[in-house]
Amino acid sequence: MNLIILFKSDFIEGTKRVRIRDHRLTHILEVNRPSVGDELRVGLINGNIGGGRITLINEKRVEMDVVLDREPPAPLQCTLVTAMMRPRVFKRVIIQVSAMGIKRIIIINSYRVEKSFWKSPVLKTDNLNKYLIMGLEQGQDTIVPEVLIRPLFKPFVEDELPDIIKGTIPFVAHPYASEKCPYNIGKPVTLAVGPEGGFIPYEVKKLVECGFTAVHMGERTLHVESAISGLVSRLV
Amino acid sequence: MNLIILFKSDFIEGTKRVRIRDHRLTHILEVNRPSVGDELRVGLINGNIGGGRITLINEKRVEMDVVLDREPPAPLQCTLVTAMMRPRVFKRVIIQVSAMGIKRIIIINSYRVEKSFWKSPVLKTDNLNKYLIMGLEQGQDTIVPEVLIRPLFKPFVEDELPDIIKGTIPFVAHPYASEKCPYNIGKPVTLAVGPEGGFIPYEVKKLVECGFTAVHMGERTLHVESAISGLVSRLV
Repeated sequence: MNLIILFKSDFIEGTKRVRIRDHRLTHILEVNRPSVGDELRVGLINGNIGGGRITLINEKRVEMDVVLDREPPAPLQCTLVTAMMRPRVFKRVIIQVSAMGIKRIIIINSYRVEKSFWKSPVLKTDNLNKYLIMGLEQGQDTIVPEVLIRPLFKPFVEDELPDIIKGTIPFVAHPYASEKCPYNIGKPVTLAVGPEGGFIPYEVKKLVECGFTAVHMGERTLHVESAISGLVSRLV
Repeated sequence: MNLIILFKSDFIEGTKRVRIRDHRLTHILEVNRPSVGDELRVGLINGNIGGGRITLINEKRVEMDVVLDREPPAPLQCTLVTAMMRPRVFKRVIIQVSAMGIKRIIIINSYRVEKSFWKSPVLKTDNLNKYLIMGLEQGQDTIVPEVLIRPLFKPFVEDELPDIIKGTIPFVAHPYASEKCPYNIGKPVTLAVGPEGGFIPYEVKKLVECGFTAVHMGERTLHVESAISGLVSRLV
């Protein structure tokens, strides 16, 4: 938690003072261990970033006087389209891409996605929001990414994807592509990443028909977490 | 396990047939679920890659006739110098960088490394080897990376590091660097990555004196796993 995310409801009405009693208090007590007068990095959800000067702290609550004088970092110019994955990996990936500054994440189906993954509680709005906020706390950002869940591949690719990729350079990561993933595109990109085992040829064909370029990252098969952070850091 | 790693001891003496009874058999039975006559991707540790045609499979053992006719992928031209980290993160990072094809990994101390991390069993040779091999199985490679453990920062940087970086372009990831991490260096690189919270200024100064360029990856603080795969994919 490199940044403590604040919510409007944390503010004592009509003041710039916040009062926190939940898991954030636990984290502050255990990790930051501050004294009255110390300043912590804070940010208002979907708002500015700044500092919170501690006016009171004990086992029950912390209060801070907050100044929010800086904008959060600029969004990363990347839309991520990724196949649904094993729930514990999904959670880590959502935290990771939120920390990286990706602001649009679309979770899609693919032939090699296990059906059971779609029933996982990780996809519930409350859990998703929790992971996204954990990512913002890590990356020191406040803007909550938008997550779209699209469990039907074909209608998504045919009906929605053409609009989503407008104004971006779209790439699909595919181990058998002939083209190596390029570097430093300098324009907004859309990155599509398949499940463990990759998209099937039909899916790659549909994406290529939609305008995507298939690219690879070398001969080695990377785990989805390494692949996503590697591809994004290379392209953007 | 995208590749089954074989050892000399798996071979039935004087033949090209292997017999496997350990956790690899469990994986083959549960994930690959092959029949006699099917071929699995195999590689000999520190040797060639190829296929294993199944001649027998049951709950007790699998036997394959093995042809090893291809070289493993070329090593990634990157030496990684990283501060010791929380053991469960360390394990994931070792698997990840082994999968990426890094062949030299040096674990160093830093002011912000918790002393207790150095006592973790993850640093024991047997465990380290297990993680490295898990990475090779993921990345479809056979060449076991070399791991050096250097728990004293100053003597390492002064006495050993100058030789290690010879013939490479050395970078240190530092959130407060003025220079953005470049792309596609096209030459061997050495990448130094600090602990959670980063190297302290003294440590960055020592690395810069040694010839390292301090570079950042943007305003956001990334988790060490994302940072390493991102930096490596961008530089190499």
